[in-house]
Amino acid sequence: MRDLDCLFTPRSIALIGASPDAGHLGGVVFSNLRAFRGRLYPVNPRHREIGGIVAFPSIRDLPEPVDLSVILRPAAEIPHLLAEHAGRARCAVIVSAGFAETGADALQREVEQLGRELGIRLMGPNCLGVFNPYRRLDTFFLPHDRFRRPRRGNVAVVSQSGALLVCLLEALARAGRGVSRGINYGNAVDIDAPDLFDYLADDPETGVVIAYLESVGDGRRFMAAAAALERRKPLIILKAGKGAGGARAAFSHTGRLAGNYEVFSSILGQFGIREAGTFEELLDATHALSRQRPAPGRRVCIVTNAGGLGVLAADECSRQGLVLSPLPADVQLRLRENLPPFYSVGNPLDLTGQVTDGEYLTALHEIQDSCDGIFVIAHTGVAGITPRLAALLADFRSLSGKPLVVLLGQGGTGAKLARLLERDGIPCYPSPERGVRGLRALLGTGGEP
Amino acid sequence: MRDLDCLFTPRSIALIGASPDAGHLGGVVFSNLRAFRGRLYPVNPRHREIGGIVAFPSIRDLPEPVDLSVILRPAAEIPHLLAEHAGRARCAVIVSAGFAETGADALQREVEQLGRELGIRLMGPNCLGVFNPYRRLDTFFLPHDRFRRPRRGNVAVVSQSGALLVCLLEALARAGRGVSRGINYGNAVDIDAPDLFDYLADDPETGVVIAYLESVGDGRRFMAAAAALERRKPLIILKAGKGAGGARAAFSHTGRLAGNYEVFSSILGQFGIREAGTFEELLDATHALSRQRPAPGRRVCIVTNAGGLGVLAADECSRQGLVLSPLPADVQLRLRENLPPFYSVGNPLDLTGQVTDGEYLTALHEIQDSCDGIFVIAHTGVAGITPRLAALLADFRSLSGKPLVVLLGQGGTGAKLARLLERDGIPCYPSPERGVRGLRALLGTGGEP
Repeated sequence: MRDLDCLFTPRSIALIGASPDAGHLGGVVFSNLRAFRGRLYPVNPRHREIGGIVAFPSIRDLPEPVDLSVILRPAAEIPHLLAEHAGRARCAVIVSAGFAETGADALQREVEQLGRELGIRLMGPNCLGVFNPYRRLDTFFLPHDRFRRPRRGNVAVVSQSGALLVCLLEALARAGRGVSRGINYGNAVDIDAPDLFDYLADDPETGVVIAYLESVGDGRRFMAAAAALERRKPLIILKAGKGAGGARAAFSHTGRLAGNYEVFSSILGQFGIREAGTFEELLDATHALSRQRPAPGRRVCIVTNAGGLGVLAADECSRQGLVLSPLPADVQLRLRENLPPFYSVGNPLDLTGQVTDGEYLTALHEIQDSCDGIFVIAHTGVAGITPRLAALLADFRSLSGKPLVVLLGQGGTGAKLARLLERDGIPCYPSPERGVRGLRALLGTGGEP
Repeated sequence: MRDLDCLFTPRSIALIGASPDAGHLGGVVFSNLRAFRGRLYPVNPRHREIGGIVAFPSIRDLPEPVDLSVILRPAAEIPHLLAEHAGRARCAVIVSAGFAETGADALQREVEQLGRELGIRLMGPNCLGVFNPYRRLDTFFLPHDRFRRPRRGNVAVVSQSGALLVCLLEALARAGRGVSRGINYGNAVDIDAPDLFDYLADDPETGVVIAYLESVGDGRRFMAAAAALERRKPLIILKAGKGAGGARAAFSHTGRLAGNYEVFSSILGQFGIREAGTFEELLDATHALSRQRPAPGRRVCIVTNAGGLGVLAADECSRQGLVLSPLPADVQLRLRENLPPFYSVGNPLDLTGQVTDGEYLTALHEIQDSCDGIFVIAHTGVAGITPRLAALLADFRSLSGKPLVVLLGQGGTGAKLARLLERDGIPCYPSPERGVRGLRALLGTGGEP
């Protein structure tokens, strides 16, 4: 068993502060943990059973030491409770707030020291903890009617802020996308972002890692872990506290200095780690990287049936440092021979509203060697586009192996095409700029312009 | 009757090229125009009736001259058909393509001259024409199953590109928002953006105008009309062809040079005309301006119950040139007196996950004099937020009169709150950056920082 397996894939869980009352946080977490596929031990000295499960007065009374203890008791009780964990738990999530974030620095140091002395790995305090849909593990004190969980997927979401984690997971759930882990690590007396990066680098269920950060503790350790993770799978970081106002706000939120953003950002770039500028950019990049592997190079071809959308996409390519490579003369010649004369041969390649499914394929075959990534724009309000386009694009992509993203209209076959394309690993976007930002994430690994 | 009323609020319409076949464009437009509340005359020499309505061989055979003629016949026939319009139509939408955009410059000049000689105002050629839901006027050759129309509202959408117009209208429809007019003016031999701006400035159903442009014909005339419109109601422009790639693409799409973007953008700024950087920014700004009136000043207060979202919003404020004004000492004092001690008093003001509806109101009353616009972040995963918050915010806003936008979570009461708030004129956004961009559009009219 690896170091943090006790946290993410425990075989047994103690819930300290379990409650039969759904109105209490201890009741919410108990209810969420009932779905857990392992042994669950509610701990509460005032109950002999909770929801039909035998409850225990203390963690010392359990029939076995547990892998994970989840603690929801007032901050002042935590040192005493933690002392009782000696030899009884391999790791603990301290959900309770009321530590350094409210000025109780001494209490937090006491907890930190206790964890080290007892050899118990600690997450928190002041955190939501862990969501692992593959094990139905869910330590979040939010009921399902207030927070809809995403399904299983390959994206691990790491967040210093609990609310941001929830927002990201909600946005992914709403878009029908899945996650491998959701993690909010709070005040980080022990387990911090670098520990999580180390764990996720080896986690076979995680294909992409996204992290929301407000501050970084040990910068050197952070960058080493981030770079090591990035060598294994894509990592995308959204750093808050970029401007002066944001940095001040981040300080008052976490009590840690946000640091010099420009320095941080430049070091990320040196290690080839992707950075999202905004919440939306993070989601757009995540979507692309959860579907396709990144590739080197920055040359993009845009194939469109709507000139205006092609122009906006070309603008965003300029902003994102992508290059619209000119088509070689022989490619242009073949395109003119094989497509109707009024199509506009160039990059963007404008197939006009007269386009048919098959002409997209003709175009893609001709342009594929002239670029590193492809943006297909299919405005579905026109009659020539049918659901067959999905299979054509998916087959083309699996042969060419190049990053390929699609912008679809909402009308006509748009919704059906989106379902088919997403199933076949082709990310779909609702606007030209978002599509380009997705493609940009897939072309992030260098190569000459 | 004003100049372009014949186009937007006609009493009678001739459809040249009407068809009984729903598979032909002339059949699609006929079907869409049947809902029109006025007299409709199908014109087609091969049919004596179409869909139960008497058809006429030529516009010369109609029982009356019409306000509007919609022409869907091959480009080569247009001069001849237009000549027959003498004294029979006040204006015409030439939907047909095959003019300057395909190199047929002489044909286009012939049409332009004919319109001038006959005194008929022309829209197009190569355009979708006009959508006016208040009159059920819809000249678009797209069936409803391929393009869902938005409902009635106060936003006029002007687009040089047909596909972009459809994308914008689809995005508005999907978000449940309404429009007053949808206009794609195509090759603009006569009616161009400035004519439309003049018309919309006086249109009582239009409260906000958004325009997608690739090129501007007469720059001086364009700016004069745009500035005159902006003095009456908000105008937001999305200009394509910003970067080198985009400018090249815009040229090949329209055959007109996109011009020097920096110069264009700087002149817009001098006239106080809002510019959207991307498709999404255009939608975010439109949403805010369709709900609230802009106000001077750039000082923003952020009131949040999720620290991380407040930090991201603060970052976006910095990027958008908005100022997070520090709270005066007496305001801070009163906030500390009236709120629980662990709330973080500052700007952003962090009410934490413990917040209740009433505490938002307490906070807003205290901070309102310290800022020009307010961003309320209500992460709805927490128990203290109920649907009552909507009425509290709406009442506060109607008393304070300040621009106020809201970011809501997806969970819990999020969806219900969004419905209530939107109904009461408070725009809701799904991410911190989009909310700030909406608020920025409402604070666009100057004032000291």
